[in-house]
Amino acid sequence: MQRVGGSDRVKYAVLVIGLIAMAAVTVPGIRAPWIQGTLWACLAFFAGEIALKAWQSHRSGQARAYLGSPGFWWDALGVVPVPLALAAGLPPEKAWLLGSLWILKLATAVPGLALLGRIIRLEARPLASVFVIFLIVLLLAGVVEHLAEGPGQPEKFGTLPLALWWAVTTLTTTGYGDAVPETLLGRAIAGLVMISGLGVFGLWTGILATGFANEHRRREFIRTYELVTRVPFLRTLDAAGVIELTRMLRRQDLAERSVVVRRGRAGDCMFFIASGEVEVQVEPTPIRLAAGSFFGEFALLDGSPRTATVVTTRPTTLLALDVTDFHAFTAQHPDLARELAAEAARRRSPVKDDGHSAGGADAAQ
Amino acid sequence: MQRVGGSDRVKYAVLVIGLIAMAAVTVPGIRAPWIQGTLWACLAFFAGEIALKAWQSHRSGQARAYLGSPGFWWDALGVVPVPLALAAGLPPEKAWLLGSLWILKLATAVPGLALLGRIIRLEARPLASVFVIFLIVLLLAGVVEHLAEGPGQPEKFGTLPLALWWAVTTLTTTGYGDAVPETLLGRAIAGLVMISGLGVFGLWTGILATGFANEHRRREFIRTYELVTRVPFLRTLDAAGVIELTRMLRRQDLAERSVVVRRGRAGDCMFFIASGEVEVQVEPTPIRLAAGSFFGEFALLDGSPRTATVVTTRPTTLLALDVTDFHAFTAQHPDLARELAAEAARRRSPVKDDGHSAGGADAAQ
Amino acid sequence: MQRVGGSDRVKYAVLVIGLIAMAAVTVPGIRAPWIQGTLWACLAFFAGEIALKAWQSHRSGQARAYLGSPGFWWDALGVVPVPLALAAGLPPEKAWLLGSLWILKLATAVPGLALLGRIIRLEARPLASVFVIFLIVLLLAGVVEHLAEGPGQPEKFGTLPLALWWAVTTLTTTGYGDAVPETLLGRAIAGLVMISGLGVFGLWTGILATGFANEHRRREFIRTYELVTRVPFLRTLDAAGVIELTRMLRRQDLAERSVVVRRGRAGDCMFFIASGEVEVQVEPTPIRLAAGSFFGEFALLDGSPRTATVVTTRPTTLLALDVTDFHAFTAQHPDLARELAAEAARRRSPVKDDGHSAGGADAAQ
Amino acid sequence: MQRVGGSDRVKYAVLVIGLIAMAAVTVPGIRAPWIQGTLWACLAFFAGEIALKAWQSHRSGQARAYLGSPGFWWDALGVVPVPLALAAGLPPEKAWLLGSLWILKLATAVPGLALLGRIIRLEARPLASVFVIFLIVLLLAGVVEHLAEGPGQPEKFGTLPLALWWAVTTLTTTGYGDAVPETLLGRAIAGLVMISGLGVFGLWTGILATGFANEHRRREFIRTYELVTRVPFLRTLDAAGVIELTRMLRRQDLAERSVVVRRGRAGDCMFFIASGEVEVQVEPTPIRLAAGSFFGEFALLDGSPRTATVVTTRPTTLLALDVTDFHAFTAQHPDLARELAAEAARRRSPVKDDGHSAGGADAAQ
Repeated sequence: MQRVGGSDRVKYAVLVIGLIAMAAVTVPGIRAPWIQGTLWACLAFFAGEIALKAWQSHRSGQARAYLGSPGFWWDALGVVPVPLALAAGLPPEKAWLLGSLWILKLATAVPGLALLGRIIRLEARPLASVFVIFLIVLLLAGVVEHLAEGPGQPEKFGTLPLALWWAVTTLTTTGYGDAVPETLLGRAIAGLVMISGLGVFGLWTGILATGFANEHRRREFIRTYELVTRVPFLRTLDAAGVIELTRMLRRQDLAERSVVVRRGRAGDCMFFIASGEVEVQVEPTPIRLAAGSFFGEFALLDGSPRTATVVTTRPTTLLALDVTDFHAFTAQHPDLARELAAEAARRRSPVKDDGHSAGGADAAQ
Repeated sequence: MQRVGGSDRVKYAVLVIGLIAMAAVTVPGIRAPWIQGTLWACLAFFAGEIALKAWQSHRSGQARAYLGSPGFWWDALGVVPVPLALAAGLPPEKAWLLGSLWILKLATAVPGLALLGRIIRLEARPLASVFVIFLIVLLLAGVVEHLAEGPGQPEKFGTLPLALWWAVTTLTTTGYGDAVPETLLGRAIAGLVMISGLGVFGLWTGILATGFANEHRRREFIRTYELVTRVPFLRTLDAAGVIELTRMLRRQDLAERSVVVRRGRAGDCMFFIASGEVEVQVEPTPIRLAAGSFFGEFALLDGSPRTATVVTTRPTTLLALDVTDFHAFTAQHPDLARELAAEAARRRSPVKDDGHSAGGADAAQ
Repeated sequence: MQRVGGSDRVKYAVLVIGLIAMAAVTVPGIRAPWIQGTLWACLAFFAGEIALKAWQSHRSGQARAYLGSPGFWWDALGVVPVPLALAAGLPPEKAWLLGSLWILKLATAVPGLALLGRIIRLEARPLASVFVIFLIVLLLAGVVEHLAEGPGQPEKFGTLPLALWWAVTTLTTTGYGDAVPETLLGRAIAGLVMISGLGVFGLWTGILATGFANEHRRREFIRTYELVTRVPFLRTLDAAGVIELTRMLRRQDLAERSVVVRRGRAGDCMFFIASGEVEVQVEPTPIRLAAGSFFGEFALLDGSPRTATVVTTRPTTLLALDVTDFHAFTAQHPDLARELAAEAARRRSPVKDDGHSAGGADAAQ
Repeated sequence: MQRVGGSDRVKYAVLVIGLIAMAAVTVPGIRAPWIQGTLWACLAFFAGEIALKAWQSHRSGQARAYLGSPGFWWDALGVVPVPLALAAGLPPEKAWLLGSLWILKLATAVPGLALLGRIIRLEARPLASVFVIFLIVLLLAGVVEHLAEGPGQPEKFGTLPLALWWAVTTLTTTGYGDAVPETLLGRAIAGLVMISGLGVFGLWTGILATGFANEHRRREFIRTYELVTRVPFLRTLDAAGVIELTRMLRRQDLAERSVVVRRGRAGDCMFFIASGEVEVQVEPTPIRLAAGSFFGEFALLDGSPRTATVVTTRPTTLLALDVTDFHAFTAQHPDLARELAAEAARRRSPVKDDGHSAGGADAAQ
């Protein structure tokens, strides 16, 4: 949920300009002085970024902590190497290539990288198995083609390393075409290698797809779990209780202006607002409830009909808790039932007096 | 469920002919006058389409609405640019290339594009992460190969842009073969880049596959949900009630001539017809019920045995509601139970008098 | 579950030999007479196959049915065209190419093709959407590269058809390398096209993977469903009943020598044997029950403890029906409960007299 | 769960060195004597490995068993062929290629290979179907291109084998570019072949992804199943009972220092520790329980409140059994309930006397 702010936009713009200038500086024809000027300006910007962070951490008395953090070293990696390389006498078009380390700044901007890392770590075992299959097919293909094509094309398949180069370009279906088997046996083997390549690739993709699907499910569970832990009167639950409650909640994605509960109807569940907003249509002024709030708990406590109609004001995700699940749950967590009853009593009285007073952060119908 | 009608077929035929003529006009040898004639005819057809739509909207008093709609601008984009380009003095074989915008008309004909757009939007975060990995691998691979191969093949890897061109053709496993590393280090790096390419591609595919599977499940839920909202006496349900009922319904895909219920047997569920048709075998004339109808509700109301055998007349999808689920549901929606009882009473009497009178849009056994 | 029998093996061997000979006949150097002899022999074999089938169908009085069946025309397609082509004066190396139609015989040997066809049909809409995206990217990429690269490489990108040829080899990541963009703009566009190619391919794979997973689940359900319909005393169930029962059954995959039930223990479910075999350890001789049989129903009828230990004799798949599910089910299908009680009574008496007499096709503990 | 030990690391290091030396020996320029020396050293190492294993098995009196095992023949395959080939007069750079068989040693180190083999075996039928589609498209594409391109490029498409070589490089999207169609018809067919290639590949990937996902679910079930079978007082359960219990258990992944149960609260489930460790905070010294232990069973036996707070000491996976599930289960397995009650009584008394005495391998609550 990390947003790209204004200062970040400037940073990424500088990053893109710097990388383009870095590419340009390697082209003999356009090694103009203003390109090097641009590169120095980018370097100065990143150096200034470090100085600013260091000064801010110094002001808050945490300079030592910042200088010891990985973030500092990560930032320094983008600034220090180029001047060092220039000082060591490297030509500018080589030295500035170290500026390619700037792109690593992108990695910190993408929260999903952690997710991908997690998938790869969880599925490390089957991925490693596929890699071993890849290596075995690669070596055996290289040896066979070396024997089959080596005599005919010594400059392409004459040594095992050359044959392995052919094998890797073929097994990944890259197919440069710089080395191509010409004998019948060599081509038959090559056909099998290509098909094996598709198979290996398919396994690879299948593993990553399954890993991603499992991780997706887990993230969904955690999203619900986190909401549960943010509701105040559920804070006393132990881990098993929170997990149990999370399994009971049913997610409901509603469009704008959907009627969630209707005044006077019998109620059979209470709702937590995961995202979006609802309007409790009480007199004289409707109350709006934001994400994190809950409503409809009277129906679970005393079976009374709904006291007000509740309508979504925008696309809203609710978590519904059925009355039977709620009773099964509170039977084993009696203190929770007591707390909820107290909360409901507190809420019911102000609602009767003045609709506005229930409009707090987690007020409810 | 959008059908391609007769006028659409003509339109797509014109589109295909126009695109072929557009391709032909760029070939020096066959720049015959009749090809340009064909192109003008296609342009006239699309212009006529706009005129027809404008006249129709004028007749219904909505000319202003049409001229302001995206559809008008979309259509105009296919007609206006080519004459403008010709008037501006472009040679015909260049000007007619703007006719390639005609293919965008296809996009409006494919309802699934919205689905794909939705998946890409929902999975934007992990897809962006994979893209950042792609960019980081691309840049680092380009820099390393520039250093490794640049001295030996200056015209292929001598500048960073050239090396990046090699990297993108390799990382996507396209492998043109116009630039191929020749040093041992360069080839080892290239092998790693190819394998990374497979990995990035696998993640990409995994994300899209998971997104598609989730969207598929969601569509299935919505299909059931929509049927529920179309049944008349369920219209008074609030959003939570419809979702609850949707979760209770079990989809049954039956072949042609399957016996759904058998006369005289005890009934344990009622059925909604999602698609297909069933025949209620009552005397003297069987009644046919189409999609949207329901039957078998007597069993849920008074536990009476089935009053008629019901057989499918073609492959049919039913949504079954179990008696226990139904009672649990109507206990919390008592007005619904009352409405259903009234409906059943109304239906039961004409069925006893005359089998025909129950054959309305949502008549039932 | 179609097996490849002995005669099929001969047929496929002839097929492989025929196809190799067909490939050889096109090679100028090895157009030896014995290759043509082999081809004629293969043709004779396939002609003989038709004659044999015709004779068999004639003997069973169904000659007319065979000659009108698609199988006959399919077979004839492999035999008739080559002689016709030779008679029409085509050179042998061209005429025999029509023998490639023989490979279509493989299609009938692979039952999974129907499954794949079904998936493609079910997912036709999203697959068509991806194809339209493919076409739009293809055309626009071709037009842009034609403009960018046409002036510099007129023989590679000078006409739109040439540019489209480049686009299709690039978008599918085939990358022959016969046409390669050389300008900066052309290469930037080409990079985007390659990445789009991976995206389109990922969507394609995701759709097919999802379709396959759904079809897999459906097949699993149908496997259980089919077993239920094969159990004699369940034959009176209507379609909804069979589906309901199928949902109640839990599949259990057991290794060889697993103890399924133990004599004297309380029983809580009955079992149907989906595949494999179990041994009911009764005195004096154990009874073996094969796939399709059921056992353990006494526990469901009168709650008596298990009367014998039952052990699997090989890897076995059982379908277990819990006592609560069974009672819920028979409460709504009372005639089924009566039939089962009668069946159990019939079985219990012979078991007490003589263990052997219960060993029939669907005998049980 | 197989670890790579110290001796294994030496073995894999020798393997890598040997394979590099084997590649080097085929390069004419660097055929130095020390490379052959390295190869002989690697061979000696692998021979020594066999001798060591043989001596160890001889000491334990199982020499005959070892010499007859596949492991021996697998090991011998890496040692015997090279000397035999050298003795037969092959030049060293050919003979040492047989050392590529050493890489097969990697296969035994990757337990996931069995998993992949299982998936391929289970999905053999649809994979074979896709392969048949592949073959049919391959042959027909080859024949058509042979006819379309053969006259113009006889040395590339002049025979069917040459055209098939083009077809296999194109259908797998490898695209060497050594043979490229040049006619309009040939290129249109080639475009269709490339798109078919993507489709075939997508099906292939989809099948493997589905197979992997199913196998993943099965492995998860088996992991829980195996834990259940390792808990001592559950050993008397028959197969159906273990499966039933496995389905009842809910997996909970908890972070370090999560509170599992809180002293004095009502308990609603008992826990088995699948992995990780928990600390039972009893006086005077907390008890640590490792994987395989269980706790919290008092709540299931007599409904007493939790007698101690239990906290995880590291990331821990628990299997929770709800009180209702437990009662339903023990109602049908009364001896199990008796055993658990006896076990709990035994545990409760020492806990009261001395917290330490309950710290055995599977002590609990």
